Amino acid sequence: MKKYLYLTLCLPIILVAPVMAQSEDDATMLRKIYDETLLRGEAYENLRSLCKDVGGRVSGSPEAAAAVEWGRQLMQAYGFDSVFLQSVMVPHWVRGQQEIGRIVNSQKLGTREVNITALGNAVGTGDAGVLAKVVEVHTFDELADLGEENVKGKIVFFNRPMDQTQIQTGSAYGLAGNQRRSGPSEAAKYGAVGVIVRSLSTAFDDYPHTGSTVYSFNIPKIPAVAISTNDADLLSKTLEEEPTLSFYLETHCEMLDDVLSYNVVGEITGNEYPNEYIVVGGHLDSWDLAEGAHDDGAGVVHSIEVLRTMKAMDYRPKRTIRVVLFMNEENGLAGAKKYAELAEEHGENHLAAIESDAGGFAPRGFGLDVSDAAYDQIQRWKPLFEPYDLHKFDKGGSGADISALKPQGVELIGLRPDSQRYFDMHHSALDVFEIVNRRELLLGSAAMTSLVYLIDQYGFIKDQPSASGTGE
Amino acid sequence: MKKYLYLTLCLPIILVAPVMAQSEDDATMLRKIYDETLLRGEAYENLRSLCKDVGGRVSGSPEAAAAVEWGRQLMQAYGFDSVFLQSVMVPHWVRGQQEIGRIVNSQKLGTREVNITALGNAVGTGDAGVLAKVVEVHTFDELADLGEENVKGKIVFFNRPMDQTQIQTGSAYGLAGNQRRSGPSEAAKYGAVGVIVRSLSTAFDDYPHTGSTVYSFNIPKIPAVAISTNDADLLSKTLEEEPTLSFYLETHCEMLDDVLSYNVVGEITGNEYPNEYIVVGGHLDSWDLAEGAHDDGAGVVHSIEVLRTMKAMDYRPKRTIRVVLFMNEENGLAGAKKYAELAEEHGENHLAAIESDAGGFAPRGFGLDVSDAAYDQIQRWKPLFEPYDLHKFDKGGSGADISALKPQGVELIGLRPDSQRYFDMHHSALDVFEIVNRRELLLGSAAMTSLVYLIDQYGFIKDQPSASGTGE
Repeated sequence: MKKYLYLTLCLPIILVAPVMAQSEDDATMLRKIYDETLLRGEAYENLRSLCKDVGGRVSGSPEAAAAVEWGRQLMQAYGFDSVFLQSVMVPHWVRGQQEIGRIVNSQKLGTREVNITALGNAVGTGDAGVLAKVVEVHTFDELADLGEENVKGKIVFFNRPMDQTQIQTGSAYGLAGNQRRSGPSEAAKYGAVGVIVRSLSTAFDDYPHTGSTVYSFNIPKIPAVAISTNDADLLSKTLEEEPTLSFYLETHCEMLDDVLSYNVVGEITGNEYPNEYIVVGGHLDSWDLAEGAHDDGAGVVHSIEVLRTMKAMDYRPKRTIRVVLFMNEENGLAGAKKYAELAEEHGENHLAAIESDAGGFAPRGFGLDVSDAAYDQIQRWKPLFEPYDLHKFDKGGSGADISALKPQGVELIGLRPDSQRYFDMHHSALDVFEIVNRRELLLGSAAMTSLVYLIDQYGFIKDQPSASGTGE
Repeated sequence: MKKYLYLTLCLPIILVAPVMAQSEDDATMLRKIYDETLLRGEAYENLRSLCKDVGGRVSGSPEAAAAVEWGRQLMQAYGFDSVFLQSVMVPHWVRGQQEIGRIVNSQKLGTREVNITALGNAVGTGDAGVLAKVVEVHTFDELADLGEENVKGKIVFFNRPMDQTQIQTGSAYGLAGNQRRSGPSEAAKYGAVGVIVRSLSTAFDDYPHTGSTVYSFNIPKIPAVAISTNDADLLSKTLEEEPTLSFYLETHCEMLDDVLSYNVVGEITGNEYPNEYIVVGGHLDSWDLAEGAHDDGAGVVHSIEVLRTMKAMDYRPKRTIRVVLFMNEENGLAGAKKYAELAEEHGENHLAAIESDAGGFAPRGFGLDVSDAAYDQIQRWKPLFEPYDLHKFDKGGSGADISALKPQGVELIGLRPDSQRYFDMHHSALDVFEIVNRRELLLGSAAMTSLVYLIDQYGFIKDQPSASGTGE
């Protein structure tokens, strides 16, 4: 009786006010999820272990192999219904030793070492190094305008900073990112012998930030490094006064043959719709300069914590909830592609995939790359999340790994932690366990678990406007 | 024409949807404020100076006097229309040297030093120290139940942790805070000779957190210290096994005579309503264990940055915008009381006061201790703030310093930064410049400047439902 009245009252109001009353049971369940996570959550200690016992874990490295074993054993120890590996061949890039960046014979500075680090996937200079004049540009258009006559034989210095006025630092990263990803091949087109890229960082400091570069087919591969933002400013200022300055670059990185690696998967089987899957995931590989704490240790432990929490609460999901620790997000996405391929091959019906790959900061909400119906449905869940300071449920990007599931019609969702600090340490030596805050990390897990719970309860109903409270 | 249409269209919608379209001019102005702050804001470098050049600054200390001079000179250098001091007598508590907390002759631990620090305002033990058995309690009721026979001659150990399930850590602080504030006098009522309080911290670590205690009139003042959360757990566990354990406490703190100090005030005079004041403020004093970076260096530089931004933008306010750096928030609120007293004495009409005293973290919104009319008005400004990730505009606490203005009918508003990390370092040795994030800090200033701008533009109109876009 009460239920019919509720539905009748709701329908006209939905048209003007999408924030609707929720089932009290759902609110109670979310409170229990948060309590379990905040009081007994193990994500923080798991992250400590991943960072300190395994450390940085570039695809193909012994550390990445150790991370696979770490994830498998941890999920087995938790007693998830099933834990297994998905084999996948991944690139094996190694940094090698002793990277050198040096301003040579400046009138003003003399010989000055600067903070650089090779970009991921890059070729090295070898022992001979590269010594050349430097030409600074900010855009590819500027580079094209300079042309071969001004670029050939030189090192191109891409120095466009991240835009500090972007409120979402991810947007600033997007706007500056082509310099690192495509800069080396763009410069090589005009005969450059090396590339220096201003670190994609929101901070002004001495840490260079690595990250993958992608060489274009049929263009010479030239050595490429990132330079710290402070040293980018120094180099730029010095070049202004001494445009004929020379720069010495020495790196020993190389791409070896692909090696066998794995995605690590753990799941709790659904008791009503076992072939309907809800995925939570992050990527297990990281860069090598630090411990990959925020990127993406946080996503790894967030995802495992979702299942741990459900198990600790004796929650039996209707659908199969699956943790996927993807391999090789940073420089190839081989694990992501393999996962999507196998999902299709096995005829698994993936309802939704939620990725955490934006750090272990206080969550702000979720980015939704979903159908209109799913979007509307999630909007109606917003009031349930407001007590937990989650306010952002906007259309937008989800995550690189789960994007491979897009062609299968999967609803894709990305956890959106606060973005302000992320690019200060992203891909640099600063991304260590100590900079992750315990409560912020745990709140991310609780947010993900809460959303998984709601999707598990109500599915995504595509042909009617209201789902919450109506069951299936 | 367009404006009339806009108003006509809005009126009926306001009834069902309080989040309304805003004047485009306001949106443009906020964007400019954020750009100015994020690109050229000086709050971060000002905070570095306050933390490193001045350091920790307990009321009455030489450092507090230096902070007064720092604030005055900085605001004068910015060329604000008027910069002046308000003299006020403040308490002068000194910590003294060599604090010792020691578990003595435990069967299990032997003699074990633990991490303690005297509570602010507390009396010391002197060289003799206090050696006594320890009785652990969690509430004042528990203490009363034990009564004099079980408490007399002992050290009372208040060990109720902050509630980790509170999403707003300030709420957890509130729930646990009476142990530190009133615990010593409560224990003294039953003849205790000393008090150990579990640090009011959300972290589990080795840092003790100080903070003010308030002795009740006519009850003996007994020494009181905070113990780190890790050592609180250790002590509790050891007491469980060895209830007759002795503890040695030695502190050398004392309350000296009141000394002359100052609030520091800077303002830009309003060009339409110079006697209408909008205050932005934080407190200049801090505890002594670190640099008072988040508490409340952040609030100090936030507030100064509001005026710097307006001046840099050539914005001439209608009302007088006033920065107040309050003295003695931490252990007496003498500056706050003095400010309110003088405001009344001078017949200054304070429209609103905005305090930042919750750290320099990414802002989430504002806490509103305001009239219903002002509350409704601020709700209509919400859409202007959403692009900047400010979503919380709820009724609630504002700030300790500005609360003294309450009887004068001032609308009181507190900046609400994300609260997750605040109590990890609050009042401890961890509260140093290095843990403040530049972008998070600047965003707090921009949020405050934006709100001040809107209040300056529209005032608080108490007798009509819509203000934004209508002018005065």
